[in-house]
Amino acid sequence: MASMAALFSALSPISHRHSPPFSGSLSPLGRRGRGGRRMRRGERVSLTLIEPDGGALVDLVAPAGPTREARRREVAGQPRVRLSRTDLQWVHVLSEGWASPLRGFMREAEFLQTLHFNCLRLGCGGVVNMSVPIVLAVDDSQKRAIGEHTSVVLVDAADNPVAVLSKIEIYRHHKEERIARTWGTTAPGLPYVQEAITDAGDWLIGGDLEVIEPIKYNDGLDHYRLSPAQLREEFIRRGADAVFAFQLRNPVHNDGFQEPHSPVAPLGGYTKSDDVPLFWRMKQHEKVLEEGVLDPETTIVSIFPSPMLYAGPTEVQWHAKARINAGANFYIVGRDPAGMSHPTEERDLYDAEHGKKVLSMAPGLEKLRILPFRMAAYDKTQKRMSFFDPSRLQDFLFVSGSKMRNLARMRESPPEGFMCPGGWKVLVEYYDSLVSSEGGKLYEAVPA
Amino acid sequence: MASMAALFSALSPISHRHSPPFSGSLSPLGRRGRGGRRMRRGERVSLTLIEPDGGALVDLVAPAGPTREARRREVAGQPRVRLSRTDLQWVHVLSEGWASPLRGFMREAEFLQTLHFNCLRLGCGGVVNMSVPIVLAVDDSQKRAIGEHTSVVLVDAADNPVAVLSKIEIYRHHKEERIARTWGTTAPGLPYVQEAITDAGDWLIGGDLEVIEPIKYNDGLDHYRLSPAQLREEFIRRGADAVFAFQLRNPVHNDGFQEPHSPVAPLGGYTKSDDVPLFWRMKQHEKVLEEGVLDPETTIVSIFPSPMLYAGPTEVQWHAKARINAGANFYIVGRDPAGMSHPTEERDLYDAEHGKKVLSMAPGLEKLRILPFRMAAYDKTQKRMSFFDPSRLQDFLFVSGSKMRNLARMRESPPEGFMCPGGWKVLVEYYDSLVSSEGGKLYEAVPA
Repeated sequence: MASMAALFSALSPISHRHSPPFSGSLSPLGRRGRGGRRMRRGERVSLTLIEPDGGALVDLVAPAGPTREARRREVAGQPRVRLSRTDLQWVHVLSEGWASPLRGFMREAEFLQTLHFNCLRLGCGGVVNMSVPIVLAVDDSQKRAIGEHTSVVLVDAADNPVAVLSKIEIYRHHKEERIARTWGTTAPGLPYVQEAITDAGDWLIGGDLEVIEPIKYNDGLDHYRLSPAQLREEFIRRGADAVFAFQLRNPVHNDGFQEPHSPVAPLGGYTKSDDVPLFWRMKQHEKVLEEGVLDPETTIVSIFPSPMLYAGPTEVQWHAKARINAGANFYIVGRDPAGMSHPTEERDLYDAEHGKKVLSMAPGLEKLRILPFRMAAYDKTQKRMSFFDPSRLQDFLFVSGSKMRNLARMRESPPEGFMCPGGWKVLVEYYDSLVSSEGGKLYEAVPA
Repeated sequence: MASMAALFSALSPISHRHSPPFSGSLSPLGRRGRGGRRMRRGERVSLTLIEPDGGALVDLVAPAGPTREARRREVAGQPRVRLSRTDLQWVHVLSEGWASPLRGFMREAEFLQTLHFNCLRLGCGGVVNMSVPIVLAVDDSQKRAIGEHTSVVLVDAADNPVAVLSKIEIYRHHKEERIARTWGTTAPGLPYVQEAITDAGDWLIGGDLEVIEPIKYNDGLDHYRLSPAQLREEFIRRGADAVFAFQLRNPVHNDGFQEPHSPVAPLGGYTKSDDVPLFWRMKQHEKVLEEGVLDPETTIVSIFPSPMLYAGPTEVQWHAKARINAGANFYIVGRDPAGMSHPTEERDLYDAEHGKKVLSMAPGLEKLRILPFRMAAYDKTQKRMSFFDPSRLQDFLFVSGSKMRNLARMRESPPEGFMCPGGWKVLVEYYDSLVSSEGGKLYEAVPA
């Protein structure tokens, strides 16, 4: 059997009950769309890591030493743009090459290609996937202040210089169109829209980004924030020739299989307020690792620093594309990835099957093998999670993300075998802490 | 100079004041986006017509004779789906191969690729452009009636069988998402949405289309409705090696140039109610041809049978892609193609420059040369239309589509030299006829 490493990053809802991508031998369930190919059982996988988009991993951090010091001096006197928390998370994402070959916030040509085609054309004629706009908004007064300058300094909330954006281009921020084409709705109440778009400026500023020093959060979790370059290094060190990526934005539960394989681990930037915050999810995952549900030999738990958009089929492409850059050649996708309830109607925002279908047909993702996983549910007869068998419908219990959160909130126990006891205890603790802080949000990752 | 033929079809707003794509010698103004190429002055153009998308022009009309008669007999006893006027226009479009390689109303895989990527992946790995959904809606009761049948008969308003749709696939019609991703807004009042989506069924039915006999309208204009195959035949007969496509949805006016070149001619299916209807536009164009503004030696006036979506940058790709199938290798694009006013806000729905930019970067349109034209305006000093010169702003008069319509409605004369007198007379007549019929719409093309 091929040696493997699993890269797990944030954000997929619990309704994606994960199940092993293979069982015993390498037999991925993946089915590629038109033009894709199906992998046959026993087929050899590549012995080198998958190539980053554009051929080389982008690194936008100024080298330590004289270059970095020079950058610090150069920023004086340049116009400044203050970054929001979400902006800073995107700076982090860009700086480490998750969005390779993108070298900064999008200029208009990239923005338009993203909105209309979910991909960017390369100089050589090929395309890379790019489905979500990575853009920086400025308002009228900031635009006036920038005037004829060709670069700006990006500063954090405390006015500390974080990065330089050069060869800038300023263009109209058509918010309604951006929202409609990214989310497939303009209904009020989309979390990312409220967080990062509604009150943002009416202009977008694109350019070449250079970050003065690596983005750190100083929250005790930075050691979980491996960059694509660090992940690739680790996969090579382990001799991995098949790297599976999966992401969750909810606590991990058991999947009912005894043999070691690749379970899940979550993380990320901005998430909506009723999701379990990053700190508590990491605490829960540490427990799950300790209790042997995750196998540290074949699993790397790493935080994906991207904000969560909840943009369903559009966003799942971004999650997958970023993992190519981090060295994954398999991407495991479940039901309704990056989905949520419709903000104003009594239904899910996205068709639960669209994410998987769109992913399998997406331009620029042909080299990634998409593994739709079989749905797992709690099998009451076996008292454990199993592959769902529709012929025994009555034997299965579906525990949704919200149901799980409600049980933990009420300090009730989940069905036996649903989650390891230590992991469950962490969840209950989190909701207890919430009550004691009057329902406030205790923790959210903010770059330090 | 290369021999030329110009293919002109419907729908572009008058604000696209056209100007010659070249003047004297072949020097297109086109600039291709990333991965595209710029044509150099004097460069030789291909001596064969451009290849249709997918390699072969689709023809979905049952051959006359026994096959057609067999089809007529076969339809008895099959479930029926009644086509709306717009549906029937799409049947026409599909049947003649304007949407090649599409062979019928979209199944879900094609629908999703259209919404997310504006292109379809071919079996060979290449892509063709496809930016607007060509879909057929059915409601719950129609879906129930179809049951397990694998094909349906499409009938017109009088219940006459028009076509057969076979190997059908029925899937959810997610209207909000379709609208948001196609128009970049969900604001109420989008004309095509009101006409063809709002009251349509909650399911879409895709499949392989076979039309029993060619779609005709019997409105005295069918001779202007050349199919892509007929147009290609005509271009070859004329020895054309450069075919320019341009489309208008408004009456044509002068462009201020004396030498013969390629002006415009309009047409199409469904248009919004304040546009000048097809019949009157054709009447005006006939007059313009008669008075020598259009050169019949190098111009073919032909109706593009597609309904108008007013979907801006998304739709202009469809207009261009369909013209590839009709043999055009140059596409002339102006300001705000397929644009309109925002239905609920005091602004244009689309950024006027986006259409041209999106077109120049669109996947599957690389083989088409995009010619952005310089804007023409009425030059008061010359009393004719000229290229707009920003340094003499005060000398120019911009006559918008609505201004032109208002002048004609009020029986006022346009500036001297704006439009040939015969053409203007037709417009005034049209608005007179409107008054005499109490403002009703006198004419709209409906397949007979």
